[in-house]
Amino acid sequence: MPKGIKKLSKKAGLPPGTLVHIGEKKSDKTRITVMQYNEDHYQEKELSTIEECFSYKDNSVITWINIDGVHNIQLIEKAGKCFSLHPLTLEDIVNTGQFPKMEDYEDYIFIVLKMLYYDEQMNELEVEQVSLCLGSNFVVSFQEETGRDVFNSVRERIRNGKGRIKKMGADYLVYSLIDAIVDSYFIIMEKIGEQIDVLEDEVVNYPTGKVLHRLHSFKREMIFLRKSVWPLREVISTMQRGDSPLIHETTHIYLRDVYDHTIRIIETVETFRDILSGILDIYLSSISNRMNAVMKVLTIIATIFMPLTFLAGIYGMNFKYMPELEWQWGYPLILFLMGFIGISMLVNFRIKKWL
Amino acid sequence: MPKGIKKLSKKAGLPPGTLVHIGEKKSDKTRITVMQYNEDHYQEKELSTIEECFSYKDNSVITWINIDGVHNIQLIEKAGKCFSLHPLTLEDIVNTGQFPKMEDYEDYIFIVLKMLYYDEQMNELEVEQVSLCLGSNFVVSFQEETGRDVFNSVRERIRNGKGRIKKMGADYLVYSLIDAIVDSYFIIMEKIGEQIDVLEDEVVNYPTGKVLHRLHSFKREMIFLRKSVWPLREVISTMQRGDSPLIHETTHIYLRDVYDHTIRIIETVETFRDILSGILDIYLSSISNRMNAVMKVLTIIATIFMPLTFLAGIYGMNFKYMPELEWQWGYPLILFLMGFIGISMLVNFRIKKWL
Amino acid sequence: MPKGIKKLSKKAGLPPGTLVHIGEKKSDKTRITVMQYNEDHYQEKELSTIEECFSYKDNSVITWINIDGVHNIQLIEKAGKCFSLHPLTLEDIVNTGQFPKMEDYEDYIFIVLKMLYYDEQMNELEVEQVSLCLGSNFVVSFQEETGRDVFNSVRERIRNGKGRIKKMGADYLVYSLIDAIVDSYFIIMEKIGEQIDVLEDEVVNYPTGKVLHRLHSFKREMIFLRKSVWPLREVISTMQRGDSPLIHETTHIYLRDVYDHTIRIIETVETFRDILSGILDIYLSSISNRMNAVMKVLTIIATIFMPLTFLAGIYGMNFKYMPELEWQWGYPLILFLMGFIGISMLVNFRIKKWL
Amino acid sequence: MPKGIKKLSKKAGLPPGTLVHIGEKKSDKTRITVMQYNEDHYQEKELSTIEECFSYKDNSVITWINIDGVHNIQLIEKAGKCFSLHPLTLEDIVNTGQFPKMEDYEDYIFIVLKMLYYDEQMNELEVEQVSLCLGSNFVVSFQEETGRDVFNSVRERIRNGKGRIKKMGADYLVYSLIDAIVDSYFIIMEKIGEQIDVLEDEVVNYPTGKVLHRLHSFKREMIFLRKSVWPLREVISTMQRGDSPLIHETTHIYLRDVYDHTIRIIETVETFRDILSGILDIYLSSISNRMNAVMKVLTIIATIFMPLTFLAGIYGMNFKYMPELEWQWGYPLILFLMGFIGISMLVNFRIKKWL
Amino acid sequence: MPKGIKKLSKKAGLPPGTLVHIGEKKSDKTRITVMQYNEDHYQEKELSTIEECFSYKDNSVITWINIDGVHNIQLIEKAGKCFSLHPLTLEDIVNTGQFPKMEDYEDYIFIVLKMLYYDEQMNELEVEQVSLCLGSNFVVSFQEETGRDVFNSVRERIRNGKGRIKKMGADYLVYSLIDAIVDSYFIIMEKIGEQIDVLEDEVVNYPTGKVLHRLHSFKREMIFLRKSVWPLREVISTMQRGDSPLIHETTHIYLRDVYDHTIRIIETVETFRDILSGILDIYLSSISNRMNAVMKVLTIIATIFMPLTFLAGIYGMNFKYMPELEWQWGYPLILFLMGFIGISMLVNFRIKKWL
Repeated sequence: MPKGIKKLSKKAGLPPGTLVHIGEKKSDKTRITVMQYNEDHYQEKELSTIEECFSYKDNSVITWINIDGVHNIQLIEKAGKCFSLHPLTLEDIVNTGQFPKMEDYEDYIFIVLKMLYYDEQMNELEVEQVSLCLGSNFVVSFQEETGRDVFNSVRERIRNGKGRIKKMGADYLVYSLIDAIVDSYFIIMEKIGEQIDVLEDEVVNYPTGKVLHRLHSFKREMIFLRKSVWPLREVISTMQRGDSPLIHETTHIYLRDVYDHTIRIIETVETFRDILSGILDIYLSSISNRMNAVMKVLTIIATIFMPLTFLAGIYGMNFKYMPELEWQWGYPLILFLMGFIGISMLVNFRIKKWL
Repeated sequence: MPKGIKKLSKKAGLPPGTLVHIGEKKSDKTRITVMQYNEDHYQEKELSTIEECFSYKDNSVITWINIDGVHNIQLIEKAGKCFSLHPLTLEDIVNTGQFPKMEDYEDYIFIVLKMLYYDEQMNELEVEQVSLCLGSNFVVSFQEETGRDVFNSVRERIRNGKGRIKKMGADYLVYSLIDAIVDSYFIIMEKIGEQIDVLEDEVVNYPTGKVLHRLHSFKREMIFLRKSVWPLREVISTMQRGDSPLIHETTHIYLRDVYDHTIRIIETVETFRDILSGILDIYLSSISNRMNAVMKVLTIIATIFMPLTFLAGIYGMNFKYMPELEWQWGYPLILFLMGFIGISMLVNFRIKKWL
Repeated sequence: MPKGIKKLSKKAGLPPGTLVHIGEKKSDKTRITVMQYNEDHYQEKELSTIEECFSYKDNSVITWINIDGVHNIQLIEKAGKCFSLHPLTLEDIVNTGQFPKMEDYEDYIFIVLKMLYYDEQMNELEVEQVSLCLGSNFVVSFQEETGRDVFNSVRERIRNGKGRIKKMGADYLVYSLIDAIVDSYFIIMEKIGEQIDVLEDEVVNYPTGKVLHRLHSFKREMIFLRKSVWPLREVISTMQRGDSPLIHETTHIYLRDVYDHTIRIIETVETFRDILSGILDIYLSSISNRMNAVMKVLTIIATIFMPLTFLAGIYGMNFKYMPELEWQWGYPLILFLMGFIGISMLVNFRIKKWL
Repeated sequence: MPKGIKKLSKKAGLPPGTLVHIGEKKSDKTRITVMQYNEDHYQEKELSTIEECFSYKDNSVITWINIDGVHNIQLIEKAGKCFSLHPLTLEDIVNTGQFPKMEDYEDYIFIVLKMLYYDEQMNELEVEQVSLCLGSNFVVSFQEETGRDVFNSVRERIRNGKGRIKKMGADYLVYSLIDAIVDSYFIIMEKIGEQIDVLEDEVVNYPTGKVLHRLHSFKREMIFLRKSVWPLREVISTMQRGDSPLIHETTHIYLRDVYDHTIRIIETVETFRDILSGILDIYLSSISNRMNAVMKVLTIIATIFMPLTFLAGIYGMNFKYMPELEWQWGYPLILFLMGFIGISMLVNFRIKKWL
Repeated sequence: MPKGIKKLSKKAGLPPGTLVHIGEKKSDKTRITVMQYNEDHYQEKELSTIEECFSYKDNSVITWINIDGVHNIQLIEKAGKCFSLHPLTLEDIVNTGQFPKMEDYEDYIFIVLKMLYYDEQMNELEVEQVSLCLGSNFVVSFQEETGRDVFNSVRERIRNGKGRIKKMGADYLVYSLIDAIVDSYFIIMEKIGEQIDVLEDEVVNYPTGKVLHRLHSFKREMIFLRKSVWPLREVISTMQRGDSPLIHETTHIYLRDVYDHTIRIIETVETFRDILSGILDIYLSSISNRMNAVMKVLTIIATIFMPLTFLAGIYGMNFKYMPELEWQWGYPLILFLMGFIGISMLVNFRIKKWL
């Protein structure tokens, strides 16, 4: 079953805005971290309860609150109250079967994104949903797991004051997070590209039935990737169009850059799909080719030995009056004849280029 | 024949607006139920005749009249008169071969939807048409069957006052009904997804001719699903665009949510189609692979025994002067030669990786 | 060659507006009938010459003149003069290789449509072109044949005053004619659907080479159907958009209804195409499956009898010193050995699930 | 290599507006003809040098100058000067690898078209480029060859004053030339349609490997045809949109007519493509079917004679103690047994419907 | 892995605007050349350090600075400072995995293009990225390699004053550079076209497994070409739309010309793709055809010799009472019978057209 369908039915029949965690519960832990910064200032903290968030709101600095563990419904509900998020927003945050989208709730912009990891042991894509709420001077990000994300480079830049991140607003922080996610896609793409190269070599050199299943699973991953990346294009282009006052014009040029990267990811996915279907063609015709080779061996053997066996059969008959049997040179002659027939058959196959 | 085509020709040649029930008559029974509610009030009743409807109109409360049994032309005609529905609306209500659509008749909005059920015994999709007429303070819903629908969760919410349904207008009720239908699609999707997983396992492990027919019937179901869900997108997006005063702006945000769900259903259908065509590829190449395996066995057997049989044939000839026949060690020698030929053939096949 | 291409070249090189009948001349006869009606009045007549038409023009009643036999160039020319039709209109009327289109000549609207009949003997689609000219209070329809059309239901309604046709204008008459044609498509669709079901059963149960040709001819019919119905969508949607004063706003709601039907026909054609290509897949893989079955039989036979024949060959050799031949139990032993080999082969095939 | 690509590289690196003849030089000759006409007047002449053109300009009559032989760069350059054509126009005129396009240079409209001829000996499409420059009262047409074009019908109409050509302006002349070209496409289409019918019959009745190459070359011709006709649609639709004062409104209705014809040509090309891919399906499955037939013969023969030969082999063994050999009726009995086995095999095949 | 993906991940996690050279470092060398010209004046120089650039800015002449070696980050950074290029521009210049795009930074227009070379030894496409910055009176071009580019024809025209290049502005220079690149694509296309023709001949005459891999690599090149050329269409069309004051209206007509060429390149790529998939069809069915031929030989041999061998086997049996064995003419008779059977089999095959 495609990723992202399973368990969507859990919510069926409940009133809209009911919070039900949909998705695999990846761990029990939750974690709340806060980063506050402006051009001069920088502070980082881990909170034990979400209630502490309230004290971080409405300051003149940029606040980034990152909440890991969307399976904790109570936590999400409290966070929603704290930042006055719409019930439908909360519903989307805890439903991890979303695909990327952006919704403008006027007070804040709600963005859903997918982080992808490539599990090299299993050769599998793993996915984690990130939801971002961009307010006038805060960003709240919601993740599924506490263990990992792709935002460390952004955190480093805030800590070190590298780049222009500390001079810009909350919208630039959101841009940086999106950029980090899109950059991580390039790494995924490169790993998948290497896997596809390996697969292609295998198909060309020694194709087996396993190849097809791997091809099929690559195809499903491409379908999933496309669904994860394609709507991102729309998300960024909507942000860039600049209808919301929450996104400043100075950020537009950066959004155009990440939009470009998204386009490139999408094109790569399409290219991979084309290449995979080319590999399938090679595989199928290599099966036919091997069948041809097998058939040729069979035909060569049969064509040489059937006439010879027939000849031997003739002189194995028990007729009383078979003059050849009496000849002194009958046996050498027939052996010579058989050799001649065999060799001319072989020559014939060589001419037909079967050998 | 695809569902929804059959018997459409019954109406051919009749003037527009003539009521002819098109579709399978699923039961003889009809049932009329009324729910009336506002923020404080709630009342539920089953009516014996449609005439009683008149007394429920034009009140200050929200009235939801649900009519089961569109095969009863007289009933539908009377209901049409009661709520001043256009003859073309009535024609569409009794014609169950419709696909989802929305039509704005100014006084009311007419919406056609399909409810889907998955019959687990038969592994088949079943379909039932629902028509909704949304007036300023009433909703009339028409169903084919009395037995079942997917609206119980909505009824429960009205009864218990859960969620905001009792505080909102008739348009929110229509939204809730559409939402219930779309939610039920997720359940269908999950069941089909499980079936497709089973099919895929089968194709990979032991493919038979039956697989193809099941694949084909899944494909037809996907075609049907797509036709049932695709226009829904347009329906909801038209409602959301907010041209009609019957749909209040507060409902738009909810329509956007159900629109999102519809998009996800459509994408899932497309994904299923991709997966099904991948399964077909696996099936076809597994047939080729098995053919290859069979041919290899044949070729190995023929390649080993044809030369040996020929050799035996030679020494079965009755020539008078065949010196080998007289040799003391002729027989063991020839047996040894045969063994040698046979074994070297086997070694050869091993080298070619046929064994 | 696809229907509708043949003989189109006849007109090449002639100045535009030259009347050349293009298409099969289906009969020699021509027939002119006039129906005049308003809410109170109704009159029906068959004219012997087109000149009589003049007297029927410019009345306060709705006049429907139906001319059968577009091969009669003189007749069409005179009719053109009588109703002041543009030379290009006349050229299109006598050229039966048109596809549906609508052209607005300000004084009148010119519509080309295709009537389809399903010849059950030949399992073939037959096509007849109908051209309609809608003026302010008249409709002129041009057909190829005198024998048949699909308008009898419309005529009956005018005669009996059933429905609202007698209360409405000439535009409603044109709508009724289009509706009659679209309704007749449903009948065609149902018949083709039945034929496709029959074909599918055949492919599943006993596929032969004929199936493919029937599949191919169905595909060509689908191509033709699509070309006949697809532009109709555009025609009706243009009429409905209401640019021309000849089409009153009251008719728009009816055009929306027939537009809906057209969409459904188009979707059915697409569904049929999908189903046909599914049937082709089944057919092709059933060929492969049967090949597999044949190859298995061959391989089983060869694998059992080749080793046995070899064994028999060994003891058919004429070596002087073959001790086994002298044994008392040599013959029964070798028979037993052969039986053992044969049975173990069979067991082997059973394990491989070839039997 | 697809027609129209070859030699395009000749121009690479030259400044824009450099005149380089690109394409096959079909003959050495050039020819300049002038036709002048208005409603009352008509004059036709062949010029020996392009300089004479000057005297034909700026009259009150319509002047059509036709220049055959675009390989003559000097000639084209002088003509360009005479009618003040832009260097890029001249570059396009001598580059015969263009596809249809229209460019508005304000003083004149420049149109590139392709004339197609069907070479019945070679079953090949031939192509010739025509460039038209439409000024206020003149048309200059440039062709590659002197020998042939498709404009004779237009010339005849000017000479005889048939149709309305002499009453209309230069834009109507251009329309007439385009119409003549599009009409000639119908002839091509009919010839290709006949060829495809022949091919289809062949595939159904006795498919050989040649069929595939013809199919492939038809497909390439379809690709080429599509590229030649598809942009024509855009050309005519741009002309019809009426932005240029050089095209009068009275001509629009005629352009709509030729636009319609172009649409029909495009649809025919698409239909041909569909039919060709259907023929490919038939061809491929007929190969499979014949393979099946061959395999059945092999299997039947092997299945009948392998057991029989084995039986004969048994009684060919030289064991001393084989009681059956001594029996009086041993030989007839074994013959009877063999006959029985053979016949029951045949019955078996008949039951399996292999015979 | 598709060209242009590899190493894109190197940049992941860095702040936007960080200069990291992405791509293969083709050589160590860098080279800076300056050309300055106006209608009267012309000067050409090679600079040793980028700082000298400053003195060439802000003159009344057109300055073209060409910088080879984008792997030299320091150089690019200094050039960026000199011409006030945006950090994101510089990031794109050193990232050679870009696809064509145009970005308007108001002060200058930034254009990314791909130069293609065809390596005839390896039958491979090589790619080099060119970035152009168009200011009011200067053009800065950045290339990867010092060795080669496709701009020599442009340089020659500036040196010789051929064409109108010296009379026009910097925008015309940019047009000339784009035109040179697009022209070079035609050369590539012609070479690929020749290669495809060779491949097609091979497939038709003697198809081997290698063909498929070459087909596959052509397909990948087509995918790459399409990605390199397709966005170029958008780039030129944006420039032509004339939103930027940096591109004068007089240049628009030239941009339309190069736009036309781009369209033709794109169409050629599409045509090549169609042709390649046609070649795949031919290849696959030629495999099937050869399989058929092999099977026929096998079947003919088996069908002739199996019955004959059986006959010989019968008279090789050792029954005591086999009257035929005693006959004087038994042996000649049986030989005659065998000959008759063999010949009638051959006749049979001839009738079935297998021979």
